[in-house]
Amino acid sequence: MTNSTSSAATAPQVVHENGVGEIKLLSSTDDDYGGVIVEMDGPMDSTTFLSILRASISHWRQLGKKTIWIKLPIHLVSVVEPLVKEGFGYHHAEPEYLMLVYSILESANTIPANATHRVGVGAFVMNEKREILAVKEKSGPFIGVWKFPTGTVDQGEDLCAAAIREVKEETGVDTEFVEVLAFRQMLETYFTKSELFVLCILRPLSFDIQVQEQEIEAAQWMPWEDYAAQPFMEKQEIKKMNEAFWAKIDGHYSGFTPHLTSSSFSDKKCLLFLNSEGA
Amino acid sequence: MTNSTSSAATAPQVVHENGVGEIKLLSSTDDDYGGVIVEMDGPMDSTTFLSILRASISHWRQLGKKTIWIKLPIHLVSVVEPLVKEGFGYHHAEPEYLMLVYSILESANTIPANATHRVGVGAFVMNEKREILAVKEKSGPFIGVWKFPTGTVDQGEDLCAAAIREVKEETGVDTEFVEVLAFRQMLETYFTKSELFVLCILRPLSFDIQVQEQEIEAAQWMPWEDYAAQPFMEKQEIKKMNEAFWAKIDGHYSGFTPHLTSSSFSDKKCLLFLNSEGA
Repeated sequence: MTNSTSSAATAPQVVHENGVGEIKLLSSTDDDYGGVIVEMDGPMDSTTFLSILRASISHWRQLGKKTIWIKLPIHLVSVVEPLVKEGFGYHHAEPEYLMLVYSILESANTIPANATHRVGVGAFVMNEKREILAVKEKSGPFIGVWKFPTGTVDQGEDLCAAAIREVKEETGVDTEFVEVLAFRQMLETYFTKSELFVLCILRPLSFDIQVQEQEIEAAQWMPWEDYAAQPFMEKQEIKKMNEAFWAKIDGHYSGFTPHLTSSSFSDKKCLLFLNSEGA
Repeated sequence: MTNSTSSAATAPQVVHENGVGEIKLLSSTDDDYGGVIVEMDGPMDSTTFLSILRASISHWRQLGKKTIWIKLPIHLVSVVEPLVKEGFGYHHAEPEYLMLVYSILESANTIPANATHRVGVGAFVMNEKREILAVKEKSGPFIGVWKFPTGTVDQGEDLCAAAIREVKEETGVDTEFVEVLAFRQMLETYFTKSELFVLCILRPLSFDIQVQEQEIEAAQWMPWEDYAAQPFMEKQEIKKMNEAFWAKIDGHYSGFTPHLTSSSFSDKKCLLFLNSEGA
């Protein structure tokens, strides 16, 4: 007997328990780590929910399950307090849901860590006249500076695609990915979360500029000398990035290039970034 | 008049409003993006809380604040539902708290993205006899394989320190950081979150092995030939990592080395990883 179904739903399952009677259990799917995942969606009365939840936990315990995950959409916020009082903890949250977790087997190792980093991307894009694609932002810490386009990798997005997307959104220029020039880890940039910023080189495939007016004040192809002469570029970190880029243009720097692979232990999409020149 | 105080607390402030009377407001601190942060801690009756919250929102609106953050410890879970009903959304959660956010100024750009990635580290550590430090894990997808030590970067931890810590925890061996050999982005490894895995080279500073018995079955210094001859090493991704490592040992591969800098726009600690040989 198993309570795992391929479709996750809130409609409780009816399970025959040793022929003695019928109890309702929450529908769930198994994860790869000995846990079960319940995706709630429909509305449910708190009292009914709690009795079904308790029967389900007891059932999963008998099956030797280690961890129970409940993904609770924000419209079911009334169930958060009862779940916490039953011993569930917070794991992570997104605007549309809260993920709660309960350890049947007491061991910190069975609960995977939450995401700790945002991933940012920035892109050097140079045309054949050795002009660099530069933007001025409307707000934020870089006001008044001509800088390379930057942005944040979306949930589930690969970072090469993110760099191409951000350049297209901010400037209208189409590009293809060349390599990762450098990356930076910045600690605790927002609350307790850190950021990994990946600096890329992209090759332009189009040249007409169309500014995204919501975030960008202006964009242009700019002679490298003018770009690098801005006082802002004297900052140590920026200077090192510019030097690496110029060394690359001069042919004596190699960054990391992406190789599409699959994980050694799952079928998840992977990009492996390596120094291809040396390998 | 300002409601910002350096100490965040739940004790409502008493503010004189145009001399007409006194209203209580939530204590808050300003963030760097035109928002205010409220850190709740003490218990508060829901009805009282809501009336103070509404007065506070109205006050912050007058001050031109864009965003309100409420960091709510899990023991105040009873306030989650009232906050969501007032229009607050989830931003992120950790085991000990839920962060809720409210946009006074309707614009998606004022709310920073949540963390999307976990960051993993792995470490090649080789001694002078060209033996590699290898471990066998007690559980998980690598059972039975001799592999390099791996782990997850803690919240707020720099990734070089994380690699050194994981090697020490799993094997007892002290090391120093040399360079980043490669990195990998794996999409949607757990729920919707992705992973960046950073493969490092560390230099051993001690050689005695002491196994962490909770996670590790065995650890040893292992001849590279035996290590690389395992069938597992034929997997494409692992093979590329091994080839890069061996190219490095042979002197014709360069990865990225860390440079401690500070951010160009804040005082946050930064590690910038660059190819030093080419720069």
